[in-house]
Amino acid sequence: MSPETKQQLEAFGALKSDLYHQDFLITWEHPRSQIEAILALAEILKGLHQQGVSYRAFDTGLAISIFRDNSTRTRFSFASAASALGLSLADLDEEKSQIAHGETVRETANMLSFLAEVIGIRDDMFLGEGNRYMREVGEALSEGARRGVLHRRPSIVNLQCDVDHPTQSLADLAWLKKHFGGLDRLKGKKIAMTWAYSPSYGKPLSVPQGIIGLMTRFGMEVTLAHPEGYGLIPEVVEVAAKNAAASGGKFRTVGSMEEAFAGADIVYPKSWAPYRVMQRRTELLQKSDKVGLSALEKECLANNARFTSWECDRAKMNLTHDRSALYMHCLPADITEVSCPAGEVSAEVFEQYRIPTYHEASYKPFVISALMFLSRVKDPAAKLASIVERARSLVL
Amino acid sequence: MSPETKQQLEAFGALKSDLYHQDFLITWEHPRSQIEAILALAEILKGLHQQGVSYRAFDTGLAISIFRDNSTRTRFSFASAASALGLSLADLDEEKSQIAHGETVRETANMLSFLAEVIGIRDDMFLGEGNRYMREVGEALSEGARRGVLHRRPSIVNLQCDVDHPTQSLADLAWLKKHFGGLDRLKGKKIAMTWAYSPSYGKPLSVPQGIIGLMTRFGMEVTLAHPEGYGLIPEVVEVAAKNAAASGGKFRTVGSMEEAFAGADIVYPKSWAPYRVMQRRTELLQKSDKVGLSALEKECLANNARFTSWECDRAKMNLTHDRSALYMHCLPADITEVSCPAGEVSAEVFEQYRIPTYHEASYKPFVISALMFLSRVKDPAAKLASIVERARSLVL
Amino acid sequence: MSPETKQQLEAFGALKSDLYHQDFLITWEHPRSQIEAILALAEILKGLHQQGVSYRAFDTGLAISIFRDNSTRTRFSFASAASALGLSLADLDEEKSQIAHGETVRETANMLSFLAEVIGIRDDMFLGEGNRYMREVGEALSEGARRGVLHRRPSIVNLQCDVDHPTQSLADLAWLKKHFGGLDRLKGKKIAMTWAYSPSYGKPLSVPQGIIGLMTRFGMEVTLAHPEGYGLIPEVVEVAAKNAAASGGKFRTVGSMEEAFAGADIVYPKSWAPYRVMQRRTELLQKSDKVGLSALEKECLANNARFTSWECDRAKMNLTHDRSALYMHCLPADITEVSCPAGEVSAEVFEQYRIPTYHEASYKPFVISALMFLSRVKDPAAKLASIVERARSLVL
Repeated sequence: MSPETKQQLEAFGALKSDLYHQDFLITWEHPRSQIEAILALAEILKGLHQQGVSYRAFDTGLAISIFRDNSTRTRFSFASAASALGLSLADLDEEKSQIAHGETVRETANMLSFLAEVIGIRDDMFLGEGNRYMREVGEALSEGARRGVLHRRPSIVNLQCDVDHPTQSLADLAWLKKHFGGLDRLKGKKIAMTWAYSPSYGKPLSVPQGIIGLMTRFGMEVTLAHPEGYGLIPEVVEVAAKNAAASGGKFRTVGSMEEAFAGADIVYPKSWAPYRVMQRRTELLQKSDKVGLSALEKECLANNARFTSWECDRAKMNLTHDRSALYMHCLPADITEVSCPAGEVSAEVFEQYRIPTYHEASYKPFVISALMFLSRVKDPAAKLASIVERARSLVL
Repeated sequence: MSPETKQQLEAFGALKSDLYHQDFLITWEHPRSQIEAILALAEILKGLHQQGVSYRAFDTGLAISIFRDNSTRTRFSFASAASALGLSLADLDEEKSQIAHGETVRETANMLSFLAEVIGIRDDMFLGEGNRYMREVGEALSEGARRGVLHRRPSIVNLQCDVDHPTQSLADLAWLKKHFGGLDRLKGKKIAMTWAYSPSYGKPLSVPQGIIGLMTRFGMEVTLAHPEGYGLIPEVVEVAAKNAAASGGKFRTVGSMEEAFAGADIVYPKSWAPYRVMQRRTELLQKSDKVGLSALEKECLANNARFTSWECDRAKMNLTHDRSALYMHCLPADITEVSCPAGEVSAEVFEQYRIPTYHEASYKPFVISALMFLSRVKDPAAKLASIVERARSLVL
Repeated sequence: MSPETKQQLEAFGALKSDLYHQDFLITWEHPRSQIEAILALAEILKGLHQQGVSYRAFDTGLAISIFRDNSTRTRFSFASAASALGLSLADLDEEKSQIAHGETVRETANMLSFLAEVIGIRDDMFLGEGNRYMREVGEALSEGARRGVLHRRPSIVNLQCDVDHPTQSLADLAWLKKHFGGLDRLKGKKIAMTWAYSPSYGKPLSVPQGIIGLMTRFGMEVTLAHPEGYGLIPEVVEVAAKNAAASGGKFRTVGSMEEAFAGADIVYPKSWAPYRVMQRRTELLQKSDKVGLSALEKECLANNARFTSWECDRAKMNLTHDRSALYMHCLPADITEVSCPAGEVSAEVFEQYRIPTYHEASYKPFVISALMFLSRVKDPAAKLASIVERARSLVL
């Protein structure tokens, strides 16, 4: 065991977690101490993996994934987390299931879960739907456990919904903690969460919402920037403001990327669809109104096109603190002249920060592992100590 | 180990199983003692899981699934059973394989199986096909093992064919055993396996066939009810009659749901397509005759519509023993005004028995685990004792 | 441990492997000693499996597969190899990923790989593309490891590209070693790798290229036969000639199946598309030129049809050494009057050698296991000894 791991284990032992047999859906529903425990555990697991030490915690059992939207990195992060803990991945492919013919969510939730430990869900297509769906599944699981149908209630991990993308924002925060040398070092740091131009439409709001909802809790000065009409869900913006007030941080919304970048320590330029557009889109999708959807897409792309100047380029980066803010992105980014003619970020800026964005992403499987571990293990610190004591090599 | 588990282990030790390296395709091809051993083991494994004790039996190896029809609960039951025993699930997606271009079944069966322990197959679309396909695979595996191609012959588990749905009927029987307090308590119990109206067409016959083929072996009084023209495969009906005669039970066919429900202890109202329709449908499917299929569907739906009164409602439930028969269903049920305008069961009756049907379903992963275990472990009682002795926790 | 295993273990200890954290893309890029170590290990693992001994080497971790073309046997061989070593399979289904919208290969490669041990890739559709893609992934992984993004660099296993199909040719060689009683017994053996007629078009060149590139290294007399215009990639043909010269074998190209079969000890009749056709097809595919592709297919099938006499039938088999050459095929074969009206091999000849071709195929999962083991385990002989010492049963 490395001295760093030893120190981390002691620090983890002092933290409090209340996730046992609970779900993790929204970061701001959990106390800051819970967030700290998740980050601490994710770092320890990452360190163990680096040392080639297995932190397998389960002998058998299922980790179920339900992806209602395409995914690469979250899908593989979830698969990686499951494997590392010893769980078997079972993906629910709704097209190959019988769910189509009128089965209720509460029934399906129980039918899948007799031997499940965790259920990861991505459902970010419809505003007002994804998070609600997760809670509906959660209520069904609670009923199943209460009525003795399920021996133990599996825990739900939100792998992105319409409101939050907690495994992303937690991975982002873990990376910031590492990059700046500790959570306490983030106090007073200026982060610009800004809209950026993309030649696509309908991107979910959950990443920017997740960032402003989480970073405001650590005393950071969070600036949200977007063109007029590109606002986020109002309730989440209110949460961010309240969080900032409570943590001694700041939160404000501005109308230009330049204003947000000025003096920033961290920039997070990322496209998203306007809240009101997503509302209209949700209605049209529910009515399967193809003509309406096509018209909306055209309208939105035309509107987006008014804001091609919202690109993270060298000139704007030069406005940041010491001209060298940390660039962040959840990936994949729309890179000008690489993945599209004009996009969220210039090729030159992206290339400079490409490897840092990979480091940022590298925390996600360990954050998911930590969520699984804390939600399924009764005494996480003791269990972790015994796992490290055992020190089983990845290669047996 | 709970006292209940201890007692169950002793009882299991006294039972005889002859499944080692065999297939399990049809319940009535196996002696009653075999059925009893499967149920006893399924209960023990369920109890261990409830206590958080791992019953992992394999270090490595494949459990292959071949689903030629959509599935949710059987798919997840199979995945759960494989994980719990330590096997890796490998699903054969025939669309992504090279099988399309003329590969023979006997070749494919061997190509998949070099490291396989069990192969679960669902093939219930074509009358006269599914079960035959399983036996063809089985013969290929036997040849492969005999000729030294396969180190060990994998065992086939029927996950639903045109004739039987043994993992369903065994789970149903396990639930009845639990509900009534023992297999001996089922003697003389009246069960109504009746057709019910559904606004869909082409549902397989294997569930009702599985029920009448299995329940008649335990001294139950089995009544099959369906409208004229909705008969099952005649050979299976004969099997049921013979079973009943041999076990001291009864078997009869009646023409109304009411007659079947009168005095029943258990009711199982479930839609299926008429045998003769399935025969014509199979021919049309084989010829890819879309016009013919569409005409047949219309004809059948129109015919079905004559029998919308075949709904399990409160009035019919009131005809049963003490007005309180146990309602069963393999799920998902067609629930009137929930999943369709008119269906197999009224919303009120279904809601009353919803949780019991979940309990019924909860036995399936453990029944499949038991089939896997008995077909792959040479001395199941000794192995089980050593697993319980080891008492490895699910969370290591 | 069987005496045979003991002897094999000692022999393996004397062999040298340099695959640790390396990729395996092309057989002729590795020294003959490396090939020998792979075969020796594959045989040992096959023997252990036959004895029911688990050779699990990993506690957790991912084996990622990327299939850009349909596959059954290689897919299941890879899944089997992963399971046997204790790795969790994670298949990248490019349709369900976000890769479509402009993500770069170097990014994806890193995003998948945080907990990956091996990545198996099949990419054989485009001439000049598949192998290049694998190397691009490899460079991305090297960068990721160098820059600290990946804790360890996963190893790539080529599951078939445009140039080579090493897991096939190594399985074929393992089978020949077994069949003839040792690698040294192959010296001077005559093998006919010949084109054969098939009513399909666009079959990859990698199997014949893999065979002439590998068998020429073991002193065999390799004859390549094909109709005019059906040549392989010229560089690979040159490699075969050089290999033969260096190993004391022979290599020649002839223009008829009969000439190749004359006196042959082994025949491998298999269809492929002409190199120049594949070049044109690649261009058309890249331009999505459907009309051009359809015209090319017609032209090629018409050209193929001139060579229906290139069928491996009894008369041609009678030209071989003692009229009893060993027939080989990577499967599935196009069998005359079984899978097509006229094909690569007559039904009678195929049936005679059907079981031997299954034996041939049976080596593939063990070859892949060996490649995984050698590329991830630092001291393979010591590790293997400890695995055998442990002697953990497949059924725990």
